[in-house]
Amino acid sequence: MPHLSHRITSINGGGSDGWDVFYRARTMVAAGTQVTELTIGEHDIGTDPAILGAMHRSALAGRTGYAMVPGISALRDAVAARVQARTGVPTTRDNVLITPGGQAAIFAAHMAVCDPGDTALYIDPYYATYPGSIRAASARPRAVLTRAEHAFLPQQEALDTAAPGARSLLVNTPNNPTGMVYGRETLDRIARTAQAHDLWIVSDEVYDTQVWEGAHLSPRALPGMAERTLVIGSMSKSHAMTGSRIGWIVGPAAVIERLVELATNTTYGVPGYIQEAALFALNQGAEVETQVAAPFSRRRALAMDILAGSDTVRAIPSQGAMYIMLDIRATGLSGEAFANALLDTHRIAVMPGESFGLSAAGHVRVAMTIEDDRFAAALRTLCAFADARRSAA
Amino acid sequence: MPHLSHRITSINGGGSDGWDVFYRARTMVAAGTQVTELTIGEHDIGTDPAILGAMHRSALAGRTGYAMVPGISALRDAVAARVQARTGVPTTRDNVLITPGGQAAIFAAHMAVCDPGDTALYIDPYYATYPGSIRAASARPRAVLTRAEHAFLPQQEALDTAAPGARSLLVNTPNNPTGMVYGRETLDRIARTAQAHDLWIVSDEVYDTQVWEGAHLSPRALPGMAERTLVIGSMSKSHAMTGSRIGWIVGPAAVIERLVELATNTTYGVPGYIQEAALFALNQGAEVETQVAAPFSRRRALAMDILAGSDTVRAIPSQGAMYIMLDIRATGLSGEAFANALLDTHRIAVMPGESFGLSAAGHVRVAMTIEDDRFAAALRTLCAFADARRSAA
Repeated sequence: MPHLSHRITSINGGGSDGWDVFYRARTMVAAGTQVTELTIGEHDIGTDPAILGAMHRSALAGRTGYAMVPGISALRDAVAARVQARTGVPTTRDNVLITPGGQAAIFAAHMAVCDPGDTALYIDPYYATYPGSIRAASARPRAVLTRAEHAFLPQQEALDTAAPGARSLLVNTPNNPTGMVYGRETLDRIARTAQAHDLWIVSDEVYDTQVWEGAHLSPRALPGMAERTLVIGSMSKSHAMTGSRIGWIVGPAAVIERLVELATNTTYGVPGYIQEAALFALNQGAEVETQVAAPFSRRRALAMDILAGSDTVRAIPSQGAMYIMLDIRATGLSGEAFANALLDTHRIAVMPGESFGLSAAGHVRVAMTIEDDRFAAALRTLCAFADARRSAA
Repeated sequence: MPHLSHRITSINGGGSDGWDVFYRARTMVAAGTQVTELTIGEHDIGTDPAILGAMHRSALAGRTGYAMVPGISALRDAVAARVQARTGVPTTRDNVLITPGGQAAIFAAHMAVCDPGDTALYIDPYYATYPGSIRAASARPRAVLTRAEHAFLPQQEALDTAAPGARSLLVNTPNNPTGMVYGRETLDRIARTAQAHDLWIVSDEVYDTQVWEGAHLSPRALPGMAERTLVIGSMSKSHAMTGSRIGWIVGPAAVIERLVELATNTTYGVPGYIQEAALFALNQGAEVETQVAAPFSRRRALAMDILAGSDTVRAIPSQGAMYIMLDIRATGLSGEAFANALLDTHRIAVMPGESFGLSAAGHVRVAMTIEDDRFAAALRTLCAFADARRSAA
């Protein structure tokens, strides 16, 4: 076999990816063991049958041939209108590329702003695919480190340290894995850094309908930032359409035009019937989105109550998204050791903070993706387990 | 606005892409003019409602969450069995990655075998996205030139000239745009070249169910070639599922494993309900594929009859795929001038050979994608137009 590209053999950065607990849990489930999985960001509901009905009608009506590569005009218009309404930034279809999911959008955005060897920043802790997406674009990922003591919000010093020579900064608010929603102060800091170092901002806003405290703010809405921000959006989290792989990039028209050329050569568009289903879903209005987000809002409230009673486990505020990040350093365990022990002892699977970067060591991420009673019970068990570990230490 | 990557601004290679005739025809249609479009490779039927029914049942049954990134096991098994049955090469699910379409597969294959700056070969004339797909992977496209006199089959000398220092060779049989099906002699030549220069073969076989003369042969089936061949497959042409964006890569298990890591960071899989629909379609057996291919077979026979009566227009043999390539050099016109004049005079749109590379200058490609009577009439008009041009010259 001829050798493979260095790009593809080094995409995972060499080290362990910290997903062992996840795979171990999945193996246990496959072997018939009952495991409470609080690992990945997948709703415990499927896509609304009304949306699936719209998809089927579209397909039967003949939308089964190649769709326009940039996306169908009606969906591009709807996304533009949505983004404009939510941010106040004038946005038209020329600012929108429809992509086969948010992940494809993150990758494409980095392909557009980084050449091979360029440095792309991301904020640690981070969603699992961020460094790999940057490496896939043959760029070099560089972490902006944060601290639990700052609720994992990036500070000016860390931004200043990381920014020189970089081309872009990947931002995620509401944040996975921390559950933080970036406020104006944090975003001003990011905008200042971007302007001082001529960075592109790639702003992953796929959790923008899941905000429990404060309000979602897009960096694109800050003065002078629309011309240097590429917003990543998706139907996955807002409409429980994870499996349908439909998302978008919103940015300057000149960039979208180039991204269409990239898409022509890398994906060739998104199924028309999925686009029409997404259009149907967006047209249902905000109430549907509130309904989809409601279980996480409810469980987050449950979690805050339960965690208030623990001396050992400290929750990062959890202002948005479908996760809570728990500081378990008082147990003396690493996040990975804690998660492994919790899985072995109680058949509860959570993600070690280490899966999401150096900054989240000594933490675990809990996905609020199971039914309320089981979720509350699992969290109580987790707290009791942490207390017992602390006493034993 | 900060500057964009050189990669994305140079993806189209600078020059005109030769698709002006296509866009001009589309603009005329949009303005209400009746145009006979013989331009792109899209069936004149939609996807079978039975397949769409299977998709809808799958979605309603809950396959709306994230699917496994490599593809669902049942579909990987079915693709493996299909490829093994058609080629005799032992193939299991570990040799298969499901991708969001053949285009995404072509791009991913080049990402896997080329690093930035590496040279990737393709055969001219070529499908429109080939050089762009290679550039998107930050590799350098290098053409293997062919000649109409050799029915556009790559000759040993051209391969030997292009191969030194290259990493890969992109092959397409049955061929778009030429309609040629590579025989054993041509493939032996390609295999010898790959082995002599340690090249990967990326073998685009998306037209493998559309063969009118001879038989489809996969380079992967040649001695010693399975370990250096990545086969691109798709449901688009075989099952009229172009818009569903579902395809695959078949190759060595060690490569597929890496490609799954790439997919995790670039696409995050393919909708589960589309995969189940594809599985349903494959399970319907070969007769359905013959039915989908039948109109092209029929129209190709019609075309051969009509073209036999022309002294001016010479057809490349047209052994497969949904196109015929016509040599119109006797008119004294370039392919582009001919296509533009035909569009202006008779409202018939064909693709200039120049759209597909240097080797096809003085040719036009005709897609056999409209209903038989209209197709035959358009071809007769084209021949009369060519004859008149020749007399006038």
